[in-house]
Amino acid sequence: MRREELVAETAITLLVERGMRGLTHRAVDEAAGLPPGSTSNVARTRAALLDLTLARLTMLEEAAFPAFSAGDNLEAGRLAELTAGFLHFQLTEGRRTSLARYELALEATRRPELRKVYDEIGRRFREAAIAVLASAGSADPVRHGGQLVAFAEGVIFDALVGAGTTPTLDELRSSMHEVVNGMLSGSP
Amino acid sequence: MRREELVAETAITLLVERGMRGLTHRAVDEAAGLPPGSTSNVARTRAALLDLTLARLTMLEEAAFPAFSAGDNLEAGRLAELTAGFLHFQLTEGRRTSLARYELALEATRRPELRKVYDEIGRRFREAAIAVLASAGSADPVRHGGQLVAFAEGVIFDALVGAGTTPTLDELRSSMHEVVNGMLSGSP
Repeated sequence: MRREELVAETAITLLVERGMRGLTHRAVDEAAGLPPGSTSNVARTRAALLDLTLARLTMLEEAAFPAFSAGDNLEAGRLAELTAGFLHFQLTEGRRTSLARYELALEATRRPELRKVYDEIGRRFREAAIAVLASAGSADPVRHGGQLVAFAEGVIFDALVGAGTTPTLDELRSSMHEVVNGMLSGSP
Repeated sequence: MRREELVAETAITLLVERGMRGLTHRAVDEAAGLPPGSTSNVARTRAALLDLTLARLTMLEEAAFPAFSAGDNLEAGRLAELTAGFLHFQLTEGRRTSLARYELALEATRRPELRKVYDEIGRRFREAAIAVLASAGSADPVRHGGQLVAFAEGVIFDALVGAGTTPTLDELRSSMHEVVNGMLSGSP
């Protein structure tokens, strides 16, 4: 593993285990078993360390998200199934990256430079959702794409961070069919 | 304002402006203009300070949430309108308490005692949502109540913390009608 990867992976783990308070250059050195100063050599400032961590997270999450980036030719039922599968993944194997991303998202409310990078990444996911909704027949794909992203975010946040329990894959499927059908039937 | 209230309000402000890293007993003393040691007198440990802050947040959020706690006799259209109005409030006037609550929710993933309190509060909101969905005719009110809470959480998180923009009240209305109709029509 390259030094940068090791630093970023360790930073992700620290964010999950200790939160933003626990992420320091020194803590990364120690947790990664690196000589003091190693993390500073890779990412001199705190901002640089956060950028490096977010870049690594994004790479990991995009790898888990192939269906949406692969194409926008999905009918509604298939869109619901794929989204349910993606959510199930994020709630299980993706727990670690989801939690670290939420830490960075909150930090981005206080760091305009990080906000810019975070929003640019979010825009890519959102545009994929808009394209998929448009091809599934949405009458308002921009709003519906945002709605799909918001719902997905809420399901993950509520189960992993909020007071909710983790839905089963079957429950996620039922929910996603309802959400997608609700959007494609239009509001009254 | 009582000393406890001042400490809790200042802690909420610090969470929003500086995150969990910026919340310390000393920072509360300084930001509140209190003599050193005042916050420690009110909440000796960090855990006690977090509990006090969460209690204050809950009080503020419950005051903004009267429709759901008031009764569970809502038909679907009225439920959608009320939820849209609640979301609009949380995205505007409620921004501060929402952001602070997200900080505490993430901290609760690492503090079992805080988790317990957070989840107990969440359970009250969730039970209200379940009762409302049941009275609106849901065939699966427990799942749907959770789904409504998750969607609401996602809309707020995405707009205030994530990469999303803030939806207008009209957009929230359209979305909530679709979400509620999707649930009440059942999955295919």
